Amino acid sequence: MDMIIVMKSSATAEDEQSVVERIRELGLTPHPSRGEFRTIIGAIGQKTPLLQQQLEQLAGVDEVMAITQPYKLASREFHEADTILDIEGIRVGGPHVNIIAGPCAIESREVLFDVARAVKEAGASILRGGAFKPRTSPYSFSGMGKTGLEILKEAGEAYDMPTITEVVDPRDVDVVYQYADIFQIGARNMQNYNLLLEVGRTDKPVFIKRGLAASITELLMSAEYVLSQGNHRVILCERGIRTFADEVRFTLDVSAVPVIQERSHLPVFVDPSHAAGSAISCRNWRWRGSRPVRPGRSSRFTVAPIGLCATVRRRCCPTTS
Amino acid sequence: MDMIIVMKSSATAEDEQSVVERIRELGLTPHPSRGEFRTIIGAIGQKTPLLQQQLEQLAGVDEVMAITQPYKLASREFHEADTILDIEGIRVGGPHVNIIAGPCAIESREVLFDVARAVKEAGASILRGGAFKPRTSPYSFSGMGKTGLEILKEAGEAYDMPTITEVVDPRDVDVVYQYADIFQIGARNMQNYNLLLEVGRTDKPVFIKRGLAASITELLMSAEYVLSQGNHRVILCERGIRTFADEVRFTLDVSAVPVIQERSHLPVFVDPSHAAGSAISCRNWRWRGSRPVRPGRSSRFTVAPIGLCATVRRRCCPTTS
Amino acid sequence: MDMIIVMKSSATAEDEQSVVERIRELGLTPHPSRGEFRTIIGAIGQKTPLLQQQLEQLAGVDEVMAITQPYKLASREFHEADTILDIEGIRVGGPHVNIIAGPCAIESREVLFDVARAVKEAGASILRGGAFKPRTSPYSFSGMGKTGLEILKEAGEAYDMPTITEVVDPRDVDVVYQYADIFQIGARNMQNYNLLLEVGRTDKPVFIKRGLAASITELLMSAEYVLSQGNHRVILCERGIRTFADEVRFTLDVSAVPVIQERSHLPVFVDPSHAAGSAISCRNWRWRGSRPVRPGRSSRFTVAPIGLCATVRRRCCPTTS
Amino acid sequence: MDMIIVMKSSATAEDEQSVVERIRELGLTPHPSRGEFRTIIGAIGQKTPLLQQQLEQLAGVDEVMAITQPYKLASREFHEADTILDIEGIRVGGPHVNIIAGPCAIESREVLFDVARAVKEAGASILRGGAFKPRTSPYSFSGMGKTGLEILKEAGEAYDMPTITEVVDPRDVDVVYQYADIFQIGARNMQNYNLLLEVGRTDKPVFIKRGLAASITELLMSAEYVLSQGNHRVILCERGIRTFADEVRFTLDVSAVPVIQERSHLPVFVDPSHAAGSAISCRNWRWRGSRPVRPGRSSRFTVAPIGLCATVRRRCCPTTS
Repeated sequence: MDMIIVMKSSATAEDEQSVVERIRELGLTPHPSRGEFRTIIGAIGQKTPLLQQQLEQLAGVDEVMAITQPYKLASREFHEADTILDIEGIRVGGPHVNIIAGPCAIESREVLFDVARAVKEAGASILRGGAFKPRTSPYSFSGMGKTGLEILKEAGEAYDMPTITEVVDPRDVDVVYQYADIFQIGARNMQNYNLLLEVGRTDKPVFIKRGLAASITELLMSAEYVLSQGNHRVILCERGIRTFADEVRFTLDVSAVPVIQERSHLPVFVDPSHAAGSAISCRNWRWRGSRPVRPGRSSRFTVAPIGLCATVRRRCCPTTS
Repeated sequence: MDMIIVMKSSATAEDEQSVVERIRELGLTPHPSRGEFRTIIGAIGQKTPLLQQQLEQLAGVDEVMAITQPYKLASREFHEADTILDIEGIRVGGPHVNIIAGPCAIESREVLFDVARAVKEAGASILRGGAFKPRTSPYSFSGMGKTGLEILKEAGEAYDMPTITEVVDPRDVDVVYQYADIFQIGARNMQNYNLLLEVGRTDKPVFIKRGLAASITELLMSAEYVLSQGNHRVILCERGIRTFADEVRFTLDVSAVPVIQERSHLPVFVDPSHAAGSAISCRNWRWRGSRPVRPGRSSRFTVAPIGLCATVRRRCCPTTS
Repeated sequence: MDMIIVMKSSATAEDEQSVVERIRELGLTPHPSRGEFRTIIGAIGQKTPLLQQQLEQLAGVDEVMAITQPYKLASREFHEADTILDIEGIRVGGPHVNIIAGPCAIESREVLFDVARAVKEAGASILRGGAFKPRTSPYSFSGMGKTGLEILKEAGEAYDMPTITEVVDPRDVDVVYQYADIFQIGARNMQNYNLLLEVGRTDKPVFIKRGLAASITELLMSAEYVLSQGNHRVILCERGIRTFADEVRFTLDVSAVPVIQERSHLPVFVDPSHAAGSAISCRNWRWRGSRPVRPGRSSRFTVAPIGLCATVRRRCCPTTS
Repeated sequence: MDMIIVMKSSATAEDEQSVVERIRELGLTPHPSRGEFRTIIGAIGQKTPLLQQQLEQLAGVDEVMAITQPYKLASREFHEADTILDIEGIRVGGPHVNIIAGPCAIESREVLFDVARAVKEAGASILRGGAFKPRTSPYSFSGMGKTGLEILKEAGEAYDMPTITEVVDPRDVDVVYQYADIFQIGARNMQNYNLLLEVGRTDKPVFIKRGLAASITELLMSAEYVLSQGNHRVILCERGIRTFADEVRFTLDVSAVPVIQERSHLPVFVDPSHAAGSAISCRNWRWRGSRPVRPGRSSRFTVAPIGLCATVRRRCCPTTS
């Protein structure tokens, strides 16, 4: 990929077609990505000296960029300043530090309200809860589905927190859109490209968790899938990688945070819950986070913030993404 | 999971309901999985001495098993003999050795026919070709889609080989079913559970590639998803794992083959194409496979069989699953 | 290993011999480890009910322990309270937080004094500097040897800091002992058992860095080598492990700290210098350490404390252990 | 490193000194490595156009090479043809396939003779046996030492096989030299540079096992240490790397063989014994090696040849290098 041509949101289908044809005439291969809000056209091939200027003069073209990284819209080259999102009044990214907390799976209205109150008191600003759960075993509880989403929405409103929940199937994007404020893409779906394209066609924030063997480049390429569809509200999350070290479930790659921040403008969260491993091996776990850890009144969960942000998770939940 | 109750294919909805209720009365939690051909009911909880006999006497129950592994239907405990599949006359599994070969992506009718002839001559018995390609970059060619499937079907018929192609979206299962003989689940979708459930509801073989950081147990759990829906025609594939060693793209985990064969009755293939890395680092690659390697007349592909089986892949293709 | 018998420091050779014979009579195999200060005798074999009492009554026996872990003297089972060392007036371990800082390799008296002053001002309490350098390449500078040790000792005295330096060869233990206050065992020598035995026969602290693919158990077993010789002044160090993630040179395994603290009483340090990777990828590296980071006046080094402690290292130094 | 200057074996100390001075005058830094048989001088710095010719004209200089790899003498650039060693009449390297076999540790004369006869019958051409054992635990049997070496020498003579044994301490090089035909450097000592230098000063072959997290480049750098001292009889060995996959003890990196063969002229062996894991997980282990596997008459060991060569190892031995 040598260039990306960002079309204006006001560009017409004819403008697009002209750009595509011009790219072909110049001996390059066009790759249009039509998002809900604007179209981006990749142009692959041998770059000629005046190419950039030639393309910039075409009708409907907003910007033309030569980008050296495989990810384009996710890169700092494309967008130098930190992206700061406003999610129902909560500011995410740049200097803002947020805690996302809540149960792994929504099990009942009562429990979720109980947890929501506790995490709110403990300083969380966004409520999480799983309604569609990707489970290693087909025989495990796979979530309450739409009923869970309804409960999550209610709890978020009751405790004044925006909500986040995982979506695992492109066919569920619509229903999740109706109830939650942020789409979570789990680690095991980080490269489920059709799912990424589907949430990329909406206007709600997408929280992408790093795959358990994904490089930073691959994580940013997954962000690119969402961004390429016109949805620029992407949040990234380091959650631990799979290594030979088996004392805890995953090895938290703390260096991922500065590496991502250097390469991308997108907000980064850290989810230490998988890397914190089992309850037993966490006994001496003492993180000095960015805000005081006030243990919730319920003993069912731990708050373990490091770096920028964290999720809170009940211990009962052995396999999540 | 303590037990699985396999219902007869003739069992009625009432039979099922009775078993579910009986499980509850016994203080266990029932987890029915309704496949197209039969229902399997998991029963989690404290096992009592006579439990197995009690459940076996219920109407519609075929078998009740206590299985120690997290995977049940995929385990040798459940099915001791090797599973041998008949795929359009080709026998797969047990002592049978097959070579799956073909291009990464179908690019044109002409090229695919050319490749099909070459790999047939080189000893391949199943033709592969990608129509829906999962690509790291949203700007890359993502396959010809349905047109590609049509070409694949034609080529398979012309050269008398069953065909395999990747499916990446549960919404594409129907169209792929119409054209191909085997569903391929790529490494990046190994834990795309809804996709696994969808192909599990069909009667065509499912070829599951090991995720790049998946344990053998996780691979077998993915097989379990398909099996739990009543589709027992599952094939597994080792294709290299992600490790610190970066001289080649992936580290082929050769020991996975005997480990899988010990734990499961399902057929296993090896795909050495990713682990063989770049063309440059393959110069001295000399495998002594199970059948003589006859280099195809086209220099566009390598045949690199090890262990049981292999795919053939064109060099042009940097990122596949 | 079922038991370890700790002999009193006043035990005679005859006492030892009696214990060894008694162990044999009981059908076990004795494994005496004679340290400078006391002898420890392992007894492997089938444990009988009264074994512990029988052995405890023998002359010269201080304590008899059945320990379930492969490491014995390093375990919390053996020594419940945190070990706190006094190194030339500096307290290390338990609640004490120290910073070890200094150049990778000692290059000249002038530079080392310059660095020593800067790191002292920046809050370091122990001075490091390499005189014997393990280098990946035989053609690289391998350190100033004894001259370097003399400079290090002088600089430590001038700035009132105890000193630490790496020892790589059992034949160098004597000369390093004369000049430095702490022996450093590098990651590549973590399982150089004869070297561990040699420093275990001295009375100076031994700082063991985790091997780049070592498990926590293996790290504690290396500590056990030193402890088994009677030298109880062992310090452990997490410095990053080798994983697939290649954005930085090593992945700092932050969870190693609480895991070690749970299993062992020994002090733990963290060396973030390898994991911080290259200068380029550290640009956004912002650790909130346990004490304010005051940048030294020299731009030649970074101070990057996390967790308990850290080393400071010049950037010029691509390959150390 | 830009250049290496290989001195003639007839070069005098004065010749050497002149070259060193000339290198300094040219603005480069000289790094002489004096082997027993010849001296090699590295020259680091900015290369000027006529440099190579200027250095080649100096007295005593045999050859001057600009080598792009960090390893020089180990590279194919330095020595294009396969190195083939003659070890007591056994040819190793190039097309020759050998099996090294024998017990992990020598336990008694009787057992070793028993094993030697069995492995000879099974096709082994070189006898292995450990006299100095690196053990994870200080309480484990660490070998019979010199007595073991004597038994090994006798058994090798009795069954007409050259012998290989591990050396773990530079102080033991002399005694091992007296008894064994090949020095084995274990995986845990692959970067014990002083040990490598010491065996590099002898004229007996050195068999270097890849460290469990070592890259191919690091393995070749360790070979370079031996080669730089004038001992050109180096053999490399892939024995499995540490990865997340824990079904077997180590993941055999089969691709290491062609990668090494491409980059280096040195012979390569494969030791599958660690990667074959536990007896339990090997039940279905069926390698089609380069020669028929005749199971020894003793059930105490397996012969598991793949690729080029293999060692045979008794099952009793959980931790070796």
